[in-house]
Amino acid sequence: MLFHVEMTVELPHDLPAGVADRLKATEKARAEELQRNGKWRHLWRVAGRYANVSIFDVRGPGELHEILSGLPLFPFMKIEVKALCRHGSAIADDGA
Amino acid sequence: MLFHVEMTVELPHDLPAGVADRLKATEKARAEELQRNGKWRHLWRVAGRYANVSIFDVRGPGELHEILSGLPLFPFMKIEVKALCRHGSAIADDGA
Amino acid sequence: MLFHVEMTVELPHDLPAGVADRLKATEKARAEELQRNGKWRHLWRVAGRYANVSIFDVRGPGELHEILSGLPLFPFMKIEVKALCRHGSAIADDGA
Amino acid sequence: MLFHVEMTVELPHDLPAGVADRLKATEKARAEELQRNGKWRHLWRVAGRYANVSIFDVRGPGELHEILSGLPLFPFMKIEVKALCRHGSAIADDGA
Amino acid sequence: MLFHVEMTVELPHDLPAGVADRLKATEKARAEELQRNGKWRHLWRVAGRYANVSIFDVRGPGELHEILSGLPLFPFMKIEVKALCRHGSAIADDGA
Amino acid sequence: MLFHVEMTVELPHDLPAGVADRLKATEKARAEELQRNGKWRHLWRVAGRYANVSIFDVRGPGELHEILSGLPLFPFMKIEVKALCRHGSAIADDGA
Amino acid sequence: MLFHVEMTVELPHDLPAGVADRLKATEKARAEELQRNGKWRHLWRVAGRYANVSIFDVRGPGELHEILSGLPLFPFMKIEVKALCRHGSAIADDGA
Amino acid sequence: MLFHVEMTVELPHDLPAGVADRLKATEKARAEELQRNGKWRHLWRVAGRYANVSIFDVRGPGELHEILSGLPLFPFMKIEVKALCRHGSAIADDGA
Amino acid sequence: MLFHVEMTVELPHDLPAGVADRLKATEKARAEELQRNGKWRHLWRVAGRYANVSIFDVRGPGELHEILSGLPLFPFMKIEVKALCRHGSAIADDGA
Amino acid sequence: MLFHVEMTVELPHDLPAGVADRLKATEKARAEELQRNGKWRHLWRVAGRYANVSIFDVRGPGELHEILSGLPLFPFMKIEVKALCRHGSAIADDGA
Repeated sequence: MLFHVEMTVELPHDLPAGVADRLKATEKARAEELQRNGKWRHLWRVAGRYANVSIFDVRGPGELHEILSGLPLFPFMKIEVKALCRHGSAIADDGA
Repeated sequence: MLFHVEMTVELPHDLPAGVADRLKATEKARAEELQRNGKWRHLWRVAGRYANVSIFDVRGPGELHEILSGLPLFPFMKIEVKALCRHGSAIADDGA
Repeated sequence: MLFHVEMTVELPHDLPAGVADRLKATEKARAEELQRNGKWRHLWRVAGRYANVSIFDVRGPGELHEILSGLPLFPFMKIEVKALCRHGSAIADDGA
Repeated sequence: MLFHVEMTVELPHDLPAGVADRLKATEKARAEELQRNGKWRHLWRVAGRYANVSIFDVRGPGELHEILSGLPLFPFMKIEVKALCRHGSAIADDGA
Repeated sequence: MLFHVEMTVELPHDLPAGVADRLKATEKARAEELQRNGKWRHLWRVAGRYANVSIFDVRGPGELHEILSGLPLFPFMKIEVKALCRHGSAIADDGA
Repeated sequence: MLFHVEMTVELPHDLPAGVADRLKATEKARAEELQRNGKWRHLWRVAGRYANVSIFDVRGPGELHEILSGLPLFPFMKIEVKALCRHGSAIADDGA
Repeated sequence: MLFHVEMTVELPHDLPAGVADRLKATEKARAEELQRNGKWRHLWRVAGRYANVSIFDVRGPGELHEILSGLPLFPFMKIEVKALCRHGSAIADDGA
Repeated sequence: MLFHVEMTVELPHDLPAGVADRLKATEKARAEELQRNGKWRHLWRVAGRYANVSIFDVRGPGELHEILSGLPLFPFMKIEVKALCRHGSAIADDGA
Repeated sequence: MLFHVEMTVELPHDLPAGVADRLKATEKARAEELQRNGKWRHLWRVAGRYANVSIFDVRGPGELHEILSGLPLFPFMKIEVKALCRHGSAIADDGA
Repeated sequence: MLFHVEMTVELPHDLPAGVADRLKATEKARAEELQRNGKWRHLWRVAGRYANVSIFDVRGPGELHEILSGLPLFPFMKIEVKALCRHGSAIADDGA
C-alpha cells in the first residue's frame, strides 16, 4: 500500500551543531535502511528546499506512522500525507 | 530530469457528457502513450480526489510544459510542479 | 483500516431541481448501504454546513477511492482524506 | 452532544526532556480516564503527524472547553473544533 | 447553548431578480421570527460586506443545523460556526 | 458603535509562570472593569481554544485601539477586528 | 472617522457588455459624488489589478455599509475593511 | 523602473473557441510589440501552468497599470505585482 | 510616485525592555522626519493591531526600499507593498 | 535551463550581530561569484522586504539545489522555485 509523503525540515538555528549533525547522520542511516527493506520506495529531494517527496510502501497507516514518527528528524518536520492507489490510466501497478 | 506534478481536475458540471467522455478517453490514451515512452515515469491516483501525483522524466521544463499543456484535460486542471533531484540519503538515483 | 474523510458539498445553483433531488436520493441510498456493510463506519453532519465528517473502514486506499469516487455527489464535493491509525493513548482499537 | 476536535501538538524543541515526558505521561493518563468515563468517545492518530482526530461526547461547549483547556498538552496544541449532529443519511444516531 | 455563526452571502449574478428578491424577503421574515422566539439572539451586519455575525441560542448542534440549513439563503452562504461558552472573565453569563 | 473582535492568545512556553499569572490576573481585572463601564459589551470563550469573541461598544476606532492595545495580554494576542452595524433584518438595534 | 477599504472587482465574463458599461458609468459618477462630498477621502488604483485602495471618512460603520453596499459594482466586489485611527507617530491627524 | 508581474490566465471553458483564439492572437501581438519597445523586458512561461513571470520596465505604476489593464486577456487574469529595485549583491544594475 | 505599505510589527517577547523602548523611540523620530520631508505621506494606525497602513511618495522602488529597510523596526516587521496609481474615477490626482 | 527563485530571509533577532554580519558578507561574495560565472542570471531586490527574486541558469534541478542549499543564508530562507521555459509570445529565447 502506497503513501505519498512530503517532509519539510525546519531545524531551529540555535540547535547545537553537534546535535544537528548527529540527527542528520542517524536520519540518513535510518532512511537508507528503510529503502533497503523496501518500505521507503522512492525518496527525492525538492530542489531549493530542505524538503523531500517520498513514496512509502507499507502494510497500512499504522506502519506508516511508526516509521515516520520514529525518524530522528520527526520533531523538526512538517509532514503532509496522501494515500495513493492505482490510477485508471496507469499502465503498470507501480506498487499501488 | 525529474519533475513532481500534482494535477487536480475540476470538470464543470455543465460540460456535455459526450464532451467529458471524449476528453477522458483521449487523456487516458495520451497518458498511456507517455508512460510507454518513459516520459510519464510514475502515475498514482490520490485516494478520494479527482487528482493524481505524477513523476515526469523529461529533458527540461520546456518539454514538461509541452507535455502538460498538451494534455486534453489541461484546461480543467490545477497543476503544481516541483523540480526534483537526487536526495543525499537516496541509495539509488531513481531517475533523479 | 480507517480513513477520516471530510466532504463538503457545493451544488451549483443552476442544477435543475429534479436532477439535484435524484442525486441526493441516490446518495442517501448508497450511504445507507455502505453503512450497513460496515464500510462507512461513522457519518456525522457538520452543524451549519452542507458537509460531513466520516470514518471509512476499508481494505486500503484503492477501495476508499472506489467508494468515494462512486458516490453520486462526488463531482460536487471537496474531499479531504486523512489516514488514521491507533493512538498510543486509545484504550480500545476502535477499528484502527 | 458530539464535537469533532483535531489536535496538533507542537512541542518546542528546547523543552527539557523530563518536562516533555511528564507532560506526555499525564496527558496519556487523563486521555484514558476521559475515554473510560465516555467523554472522549473516539481517539485516532493521524498517520504521519503528531496530531489526533477525536470525537467528544459532552453536555455542551462549556464542558468541552473545560476538558480541552485542562489537558496537560493544551498550551502546546493547535485545536480545531466542529460541532456535529446527526446526518440525514446516518442509519444510527452514533451518539449525535 | 450559544454558537457564533458568520454567514457570507454570495448570490450568483445570473439569478433572476425576482428569485433573489423573494429569497431575501423570506430570509428576512424567517430571521425576524427566529429573533422573536429567542433562537437568533444577536444579528449584526459586517460593515462593507454582504455578511453577518450572529449568536444563536439553541438546544445543541442539531437544532443549530436545522435552523441554518433551513434558511432560504443557505445554498448561497459560506458559513463558519464556533461553539461558545462562558469566559472566565465575563461578569455575566450573557446566555453562555 | 460596535466592533466585533476575535482575540487569540499565544503565551510563549518559556514565559516565567509568575509573569504569566500576573498578566492573566491584570487582564481579568481590566476586562471586568471594561464590562462594568459598558465598553466590553459581550465576552464569550471560543470552546477548545485560548481565544474569545467579543463585542466592543466604543466612540470609534481610536477608543477601540486604546482599549485593545492597553490590555496586558495585547503583546501575546492575534486580533481580528470587524466593524459592525445594524442588520436590515434585526428586530432590535442591539447596540449597533 | 476613517475606514481603509480594499475593493477587488470581479466582473463575470458573460455579463452583457451594455450592462457592464452602464455599471461602470454609474459607479464612476457615484464615486465622484462621494469624493466631492468628502465621504470618499482617498481613491487610488492598485497597479496591475482591477482593484482600488480607498479611505472613507464617515460617521461610523453604518454609514460606511450604506455607501459601499449602495455602489453599483458592490455585487461584483470582494471588499476588505480596516478601521483606522490616529497613529502615535503621525505628525498630523490626517482625518483620523 | 522594474516591476515583477506574475500572470495566471483562467479562460472560462464556455468561452466560444473563436473568441478565445482572437484574444490569444491579439494578446500575442501586443506582447511582442511591448517587448520590441522595451517595456516588457522579460517574459518566461511557468512550466506546467497557463501562467508567466514577467519583468516590466516602465516609468512608474501608472504606465504599468495602463499596459496590464490594456492586455486583451486582462479580464481573465489573476495578477500579482512586486516592485523591484537593485539588490545590494547585484554586480550589474540589470535595469533596476 | 505612491506606494501603499502595510506594516505589522511583531516584537519578540524576550527582547529586553530597554532595547524595545529605544527601537520605538528612534522609529517614531524617523517616521516624523519622513513625514515632514513628504516621503511618508499618510500614516494611520490599524485599530486593534500593532500595524499601520501608510502611503509613501517616493522617486521609485529603490527609494522606497531604502526608507523601509532603514526603519529601526524593519527586522521585526511583516511588510506588504502595493504600487498605486491614479484611479480613473479619482477627482484629484491625490499624489498618484 | 532557467529557474525562477524567490528567497525571503528571516534572520532570528537573537542571532549575535557578528554571526549575522559574517553570514551576509559571505552570502554577498558567493552571490557575486555565481553572477560572474553566469549561474545567477538575474538578482533583484523586492522593494520593502528582505527578499529577492532571482533567475538561475543551471544544468538542472540538481545543480540548482547544490547552489541554493550551499548559500550561507540558506538555513534562514523561505524559498519558492518555479521551473521556467520559453513563452510562446517571447521574441527572444532570453536564456529559456
